[in-house]
Amino acid sequence: MEILDLEDYPIYVGDIGESLPALLDKVSFSALFVLVDENTRRHCLPRVLPLLPAGIPLEILEIPSGEIHKNIATCQNIWEMLLRAGADRQALMLNLGGGVIGDMGGFCAATFKRGIRFVQMPGTLLSQVDASIGGKLGIDFGEVKNSIGVFQNPLAVFVDPAFLDTLSERELRSGFAEIIKHALIADGPQWQMLLQSEPKSHFKNAATILHSLRIKRAVVQADPYEKGIRKALNFGHTVGHAVESWSLGTDAPLLHGEAVAVGMICEAWLSRQLAGLPEQDLNDIAHWVDRMYALPKLPVEVFPELIALMRNDKKNTGGKINCTLLESAGQARIDGFVEEDLLLESLHFFNHLT
Amino acid sequence: MEILDLEDYPIYVGDIGESLPALLDKVSFSALFVLVDENTRRHCLPRVLPLLPAGIPLEILEIPSGEIHKNIATCQNIWEMLLRAGADRQALMLNLGGGVIGDMGGFCAATFKRGIRFVQMPGTLLSQVDASIGGKLGIDFGEVKNSIGVFQNPLAVFVDPAFLDTLSERELRSGFAEIIKHALIADGPQWQMLLQSEPKSHFKNAATILHSLRIKRAVVQADPYEKGIRKALNFGHTVGHAVESWSLGTDAPLLHGEAVAVGMICEAWLSRQLAGLPEQDLNDIAHWVDRMYALPKLPVEVFPELIALMRNDKKNTGGKINCTLLESAGQARIDGFVEEDLLLESLHFFNHLT
Repeated sequence: MEILDLEDYPIYVGDIGESLPALLDKVSFSALFVLVDENTRRHCLPRVLPLLPAGIPLEILEIPSGEIHKNIATCQNIWEMLLRAGADRQALMLNLGGGVIGDMGGFCAATFKRGIRFVQMPGTLLSQVDASIGGKLGIDFGEVKNSIGVFQNPLAVFVDPAFLDTLSERELRSGFAEIIKHALIADGPQWQMLLQSEPKSHFKNAATILHSLRIKRAVVQADPYEKGIRKALNFGHTVGHAVESWSLGTDAPLLHGEAVAVGMICEAWLSRQLAGLPEQDLNDIAHWVDRMYALPKLPVEVFPELIALMRNDKKNTGGKINCTLLESAGQARIDGFVEEDLLLESLHFFNHLT
Repeated sequence: MEILDLEDYPIYVGDIGESLPALLDKVSFSALFVLVDENTRRHCLPRVLPLLPAGIPLEILEIPSGEIHKNIATCQNIWEMLLRAGADRQALMLNLGGGVIGDMGGFCAATFKRGIRFVQMPGTLLSQVDASIGGKLGIDFGEVKNSIGVFQNPLAVFVDPAFLDTLSERELRSGFAEIIKHALIADGPQWQMLLQSEPKSHFKNAATILHSLRIKRAVVQADPYEKGIRKALNFGHTVGHAVESWSLGTDAPLLHGEAVAVGMICEAWLSRQLAGLPEQDLNDIAHWVDRMYALPKLPVEVFPELIALMRNDKKNTGGKINCTLLESAGQARIDGFVEEDLLLESLHFFNHLT
């Protein structure tokens, strides 16, 4: 068991059985509410239930899985379940699941009776390394991702690699994209280590997850409200979000991390053109990532649609498209404003990788 | 113009023309959104519009007036209007109206894109003396008042008695209930002064409003997150909220302050039983308040419903019903946990007042 202490709350990395009971013993609460979806109810809840104290009211709140349910209607469901169960301001909510459960469960807790305490127990590799730091909570609204929400820290986060045991290799690989990203933006030696190792060996590896969390902690603590350096975390996401949005309408949608993998390759190429990323780093990133994800090529006829999606990104100003670029593998530079034809070229670069 | 400086933001009491332009000149923002209802659009907006800077995008957001609209559906309307107008995180929202506009507009601002700045311009006596301090924001949900919300401070509050000029005497009297409450929980001499004066003389009186704001400031600053003494402000509200919720479904709904007046009488009676409130104080409070508000009796058959509503109050912990009681007129005691049959008796006491 390792403890990563943030300014306001701890992240426990390791067997939840060694950490959750102690925390629940230390804080007092009137009732426990565990938010799950149909997957985490089956696969993760059995690991948690035996750790909860007897003699305290316990209620399981189940919502359907999937980003499509991360909306205000599901929030209303959650709030209603809390009200019906008589939850008071001393209630404690445990959010057991991936990014949707964490973002939406946290938002519901932060707004129920003007805020009850909550604990995050991320159930995917993506949410373990990405969503467990930063206090960003919220839901999708009006077709805009995360447009309604608040910043609020959890009481604690429990990152237990055992929660990942039932995930498919594809899902784990998708989450691993954020681990690659953290190394690329801020930790050159970690990038070299990843490059020379077998990726699968990291997918459920507490040490790798912990290291990645440390990188993100440093970035977020330097800029909690995303006014500057925290934007480095957007590396791979300008192109990646566009590819993800487009692919959601196809027969073979990409997972978030797969789309970010495409984005990292394209934005590494842009970094070579605009930010001095060495040729060797570009080659390493492009070929290693492309091979690992076995990424399908993008149809050339959708390039204009992808550019249009990037143009609508809220980070842009003055007609150019905002990207985080790399000066080297391990050093990001924020606020790179990129011309559209260069972005087009980066998509061609990705497509011609062999 | 008087300025009441809170820890995090100022309250300007007096002519808004002397204070708003200077503030808007000092902060920078990308667009202005003024939230109004049909009443404040007609009666208050004309006083504000000439004070807003030229050359900055300005949008008037209108919602229907009334507590019945203080719900998640109206929030969705407001969020949609903000999204459609292209509001970004540098937008500034001006909430021009009573408690509904302030609570709900503030909540929408605090949750839009994880929080934009907002200014409160309370348009009723109630919201001027009550809602302008404390950072409590929210909406009614699942038939429970203010059950969804957050704590978030505004950039500033503008309390201008001129906004009260078009209010009915009934509305002013309702707001005056909070002025009475502030005196009862923390300022005995002020209570005696009020008791011996003509209530109407205080309804639009800047000095009385300012005095009441000073009492509330002292209480809130001592306990910003309502863990202790701030609960004193709930005096009259445990019973009052239940009466208000119930009455909203009747043909003759009470105004908030009228329901709180009922609550103060019932809770004064409980204070006599449980907290040593002197007989004389109980008599003064019960008869003076009952006479001033000419309150209708409560149908005995709804008493069980009222008790059930109190049971759902967010101030409760572990199933008991929490009331703030008075040790004397001017001295509150928090966390009185009251049995349900005593609460029933207090409703009978109110009904039998002559």
